[in-house]
Amino acid sequence: MDLRSGCPINLAVEVLGDRWSLVILRDIMFGNLRTYGELHGKSLEGIATNILASRLKSLTEQGLITSAPDPGHKQRTIYSFTEMAIELVPVMAQLGTWGAKHLPASPLFSARAVALDEGGPAMWDDFMDELRHLHLGAPAPKRSVLAVLEAAYLKALDTQAVA
Amino acid sequence: MDLRSGCPINLAVEVLGDRWSLVILRDIMFGNLRTYGELHGKSLEGIATNILASRLKSLTEQGLITSAPDPGHKQRTIYSFTEMAIELVPVMAQLGTWGAKHLPASPLFSARAVALDEGGPAMWDDFMDELRHLHLGAPAPKRSVLAVLEAAYLKALDTQAVA
Repeated sequence: MDLRSGCPINLAVEVLGDRWSLVILRDIMFGNLRTYGELHGKSLEGIATNILASRLKSLTEQGLITSAPDPGHKQRTIYSFTEMAIELVPVMAQLGTWGAKHLPASPLFSARAVALDEGGPAMWDDFMDELRHLHLGAPAPKRSVLAVLEAAYLKALDTQAVA
Repeated sequence: MDLRSGCPINLAVEVLGDRWSLVILRDIMFGNLRTYGELHGKSLEGIATNILASRLKSLTEQGLITSAPDPGHKQRTIYSFTEMAIELVPVMAQLGTWGAKHLPASPLFSARAVALDEGGPAMWDDFMDELRHLHLGAPAPKRSVLAVLEAAYLKALDTQAVA
């Protein structure tokens, strides 16, 4: 990598500053989408196959994800976060809070971001522990933040259906 | 803007997800660089003039900055943050923390990020108040976070010179 400067914000932008990397990381983090098929098939933004493949390659090279054959289905590859990607939870939380406040975000798709904002750093820590369990084989945490976020989403869906 | 989805993280990526926007916002935020000449001349990453001009235009269109003639020098334009950009402080703080920990950041250029991380949300709030003073004409805050960050940088510079 031809680095522009040693400033940590610049370096973060060099790794994450494109139109898709953070969106793919969001889908792995919040949706637990772990295969190419899931990441393509369930993409809210309709990511193109060639872009998805190229970003997965680049995220792997940069140390954010690893890939391994699915034990139950050898032709399929499972992508996992490294600790480096797991520690993007606070960045994602702040980006979601900012986007929900300042951009034309839908209430439904903001429900998880709002819940994560309200939960604050304690919830982000628990979420990182849950991701360490799902991606790195660490012990299961006491509570599932993914379940809390899913409940917030379903509640917003219910509100939307009634309105 | 042709928005891909109403997810707040996706929307944030649509606004900030490129190789330069966050770097320019960093220079305005942490360096108080407010003119085209300063942003170009003091760029740590050597931003090209055409990219700087195009990004300033796009950040203005997206509501992150405003421009006005310099009262003391009418040919010169002063760029100011809107509240939307000021509230990126927590995002910048978390990006800096993450970059300083996981990427080959220089100790010197990480000094401000480390100080902002250690200061935590209370310091981010004070920093946003200072930016509201500098950019939006709000009253001066009790303490200058920019001065605290500058002191951290100078201390790191001193340490580097001795080493």
